Amino acid sequence: MTVDEAALVDLCDTWIRSRQHVGPKHLSEPAPDEPTLRALFAAAAAAPDHAQLRPWRFLVLGPAARERLSEVFAQALLARDPTAQPYQMDEARQKAFRGPVLILAVVDLRAEHADVPPMERVFSLGAAVQNLLLAAQARGFASGLSSGRALQSPVLRQAFDLAEGEHALCFISLGTPTRHKTPRQRPGVDDFVRWI
Amino acid sequence: MTVDEAALVDLCDTWIRSRQHVGPKHLSEPAPDEPTLRALFAAAAAAPDHAQLRPWRFLVLGPAARERLSEVFAQALLARDPTAQPYQMDEARQKAFRGPVLILAVVDLRAEHADVPPMERVFSLGAAVQNLLLAAQARGFASGLSSGRALQSPVLRQAFDLAEGEHALCFISLGTPTRHKTPRQRPGVDDFVRWI
Repeated sequence: MTVDEAALVDLCDTWIRSRQHVGPKHLSEPAPDEPTLRALFAAAAAAPDHAQLRPWRFLVLGPAARERLSEVFAQALLARDPTAQPYQMDEARQKAFRGPVLILAVVDLRAEHADVPPMERVFSLGAAVQNLLLAAQARGFASGLSSGRALQSPVLRQAFDLAEGEHALCFISLGTPTRHKTPRQRPGVDDFVRWI
Repeated sequence: MTVDEAALVDLCDTWIRSRQHVGPKHLSEPAPDEPTLRALFAAAAAAPDHAQLRPWRFLVLGPAARERLSEVFAQALLARDPTAQPYQMDEARQKAFRGPVLILAVVDLRAEHADVPPMERVFSLGAAVQNLLLAAQARGFASGLSSGRALQSPVLRQAFDLAEGEHALCFISLGTPTRHKTPRQRPGVDDFVRWI
């Protein structure tokens, strides 16, 4: 291995290991524009995808879709907790407006294919999203994934036209961090690997 | 963005987009040694992991474990097809010996955590494996993921001591390709992204 190759390996390792969650409320402009987002999605498209089912899709939520999402968050809260107060519903609504770029990641379990069980399809989405996050990181953008019970709510499914067999897995937020974050401690290799 | 930053982005995009499946029978030495594998697993450990459940683990299968796996493949075949012929069982056994490095990826759905549904845990494993594959790619190694019905068989679960709530998701093979592969066609961004 030449020095340059070793430097490249270091760069890639650092790049992968240093990516960490930044919550949407700590993300602001500058954020990826549409051409940049297209490049990030092209990275996502390179994920392992058994039998080429492409079992996922993404919705990039613009201003009108975020308005809709804010109502979804409020209604999903009310459905889980009929005693929710107006200020709590307002808090729920505000979550739809955090972070400059907001994307909904959807897994598609509809295709009939005996060799590709549902878990493999969700696995493929995880790989696709990781590619997207790393491509964003390479461009100097930070990212956060968020989820929550609203993702499974009928009101969200209806608002975003999810088909039966599709499931909203998480939101992806992208932008520039507004504050420094301490590097996250990761599990040690011996905690999760066995040589047998 | 300076020219150097643009070059770095190109490098990362090319790296992510050019990674593609190479089947275990087309992988040979040189392959990652143990220190290299530890670096790849450290990359895997940086995957998004909601609530830090670390809902996955990996088994690196050495020669004795591959012997055991070969018997698993033969017995799993016989369980699905009691008329399987000896030559077919031998073919099934041979699959356990393909490729210089063989790793079993396991998702762990046992932890109780209402905020992290099973799909998020499988998603996390997909992200972890993608990190591992990209870290291998940075070092000039190729990789393949493989699955199949044997992964769900009781005989495999028993041979590798999977707990109830753990599921073997796929095998990861690593090494050096023995032949050139045509770049894989990937889905176009407009096939799976909507701006709404």
